[in-house]
Amino acid sequence: MRVIITGGAGFLGRLLADRVLAAGRLAGPSGHAELVDEVVLVDIAHPTGTAVTDDPRVVRVTGDIADGAMMASLADRDDLSVFHLAAMVSAACEQDFDGAVHANLDGTRAVFDAARARKSCPRVVFASSIAAFGGPAVADTVTDETKLTPETTYGTLKAIGELLINDYTRRGFFDGRTCRLPTVIIRPGRPNAAASSWVSSVFREPIGGQSAVVPIDLDVPVPVSSYSTVVENLLRVHEVDGELIGADRALNLPAISVTGRQMIEAVVSVHDREIGPIAHRIDPTISKVFAGWAKQSRFDRAIELGLVVDVSLDSIIQTYIRDYAPR
Amino acid sequence: MRVIITGGAGFLGRLLADRVLAAGRLAGPSGHAELVDEVVLVDIAHPTGTAVTDDPRVVRVTGDIADGAMMASLADRDDLSVFHLAAMVSAACEQDFDGAVHANLDGTRAVFDAARARKSCPRVVFASSIAAFGGPAVADTVTDETKLTPETTYGTLKAIGELLINDYTRRGFFDGRTCRLPTVIIRPGRPNAAASSWVSSVFREPIGGQSAVVPIDLDVPVPVSSYSTVVENLLRVHEVDGELIGADRALNLPAISVTGRQMIEAVVSVHDREIGPIAHRIDPTISKVFAGWAKQSRFDRAIELGLVVDVSLDSIIQTYIRDYAPR
Repeated sequence: MRVIITGGAGFLGRLLADRVLAAGRLAGPSGHAELVDEVVLVDIAHPTGTAVTDDPRVVRVTGDIADGAMMASLADRDDLSVFHLAAMVSAACEQDFDGAVHANLDGTRAVFDAARARKSCPRVVFASSIAAFGGPAVADTVTDETKLTPETTYGTLKAIGELLINDYTRRGFFDGRTCRLPTVIIRPGRPNAAASSWVSSVFREPIGGQSAVVPIDLDVPVPVSSYSTVVENLLRVHEVDGELIGADRALNLPAISVTGRQMIEAVVSVHDREIGPIAHRIDPTISKVFAGWAKQSRFDRAIELGLVVDVSLDSIIQTYIRDYAPR
Repeated sequence: MRVIITGGAGFLGRLLADRVLAAGRLAGPSGHAELVDEVVLVDIAHPTGTAVTDDPRVVRVTGDIADGAMMASLADRDDLSVFHLAAMVSAACEQDFDGAVHANLDGTRAVFDAARARKSCPRVVFASSIAAFGGPAVADTVTDETKLTPETTYGTLKAIGELLINDYTRRGFFDGRTCRLPTVIIRPGRPNAAASSWVSSVFREPIGGQSAVVPIDLDVPVPVSSYSTVVENLLRVHEVDGELIGADRALNLPAISVTGRQMIEAVVSVHDREIGPIAHRIDPTISKVFAGWAKQSRFDRAIELGLVVDVSLDSIIQTYIRDYAPR
């Protein structure tokens, strides 16, 4: 079978490709495990040096996912699965509304319609975000039943994607599943345009001997998950029997909530070498975005379906050091 | 100022035009009352014989609201307000997914973007529907805080419109307000392709000496509102100070919940002449749609904002007889 990963040149996309290749088989449209003979990584750009594998099953495609003809040509096999991760990130969406709608709504529709064109009812896993929650509804803990009243364009377009996943699935166009991702840490490399970028920087920069800043109140909890847990859960959501998910196909992925203060304490205690300095300097824009996001999330359905959760923030840091900052 | 009503050739659109013309002034973008000198009724078709007025302020435009250039040309005044009522109805959306997306998503986007192109922040009133609720979330009464998990394409696209209204408003593109309409009764004329069409027929046909059918369980409550109350509330929502609405711009409009049994009893008792026969014959398709819709709704915010509610089903029937079935 062919597995398409949109946003395939991104950090999560590449890790997911590795995970799929390692698994070797995924549940096909019939529900039976099928051999994966192609993993297609679609992205708007494939920066040099980001290849994680020279596996012959990997095909890289550069293009705009909103290009319906391109997406249709990539989805020209019935034994197909799609992981739709591509998106303009949160802060960029706030700056460029039309670009956000193009990438995150028109792009999402083109991806979904390409899967729909197969009559085999392929599985489609959509990466939504905890940012789809927002406003008064998140005053307390968010659950899978909490109304989505996002207060960012990014969250709005993710919430729209969730609605489309449910309707395409209800109509039998494909077998869709939405994962609502918490903030994914610890991303290697450079900061990006996500409002949550600092939640990786606060670990990565000090471990690399650089300085970092916590830009929001030190006692505001942020739901996070390690990249390895998120990738494992994306795969597990793909494999779940769709009958068990129900009509609302969206699941909060497991997360642990940690404050800026806890992040600082953890990185100082876990990393036993000298680290770069961590400052606390409020950024009003980022603080406002986080004020509208969920502080705690419940993910009972995810656990029932067999998804995994990080043991601790310490273990997340240790995994990052093992993977990206070997001593 | 110019008032654009999409779906302006429809039953509600024409009544709303009459109501706006009678008011003479509406709150302009600045919030101050302005003289209405043009009411533009946009519709995909203007059937002959549906004119309700020869008022010189009325302009009728025939065209597809998804035509962005047309919508932009209609919205070429800063002193503007928009009532966006145009939509493919529920049963038609189930039959024609692509047509539904064209009319109810691409069309809605074109209407919203035309209003956004004015830098005056015009008021935009969007007619959503109680059908935006659905699934497990409506097991009990729906409120303004209930998660939207629609189980129809019509409801899905209305829920998407609500999300866009909130984000366009948050960004200051326009001052949007969403009214979630219950089933509107008693529509004169002929049945249409809405799954709820029978809720008007069950009164209209017997009063006209014809037969009618209740196609769902006799004891399932259906939230309804008279057309006159809905039109009054659309106007009142337009006039409300936007600050009072908050970030989630969507309001359940007031409704009363009545069962098929109560509908039959009311039409028999209110109309003192001989009426046509009313049968009870379950239609599985329509029953399934209603099973996924809300049975009761709460509309506390609407009442706080000064919206009105029907006194009783009897009064709704009496109003219909007065307006459309004079003795």
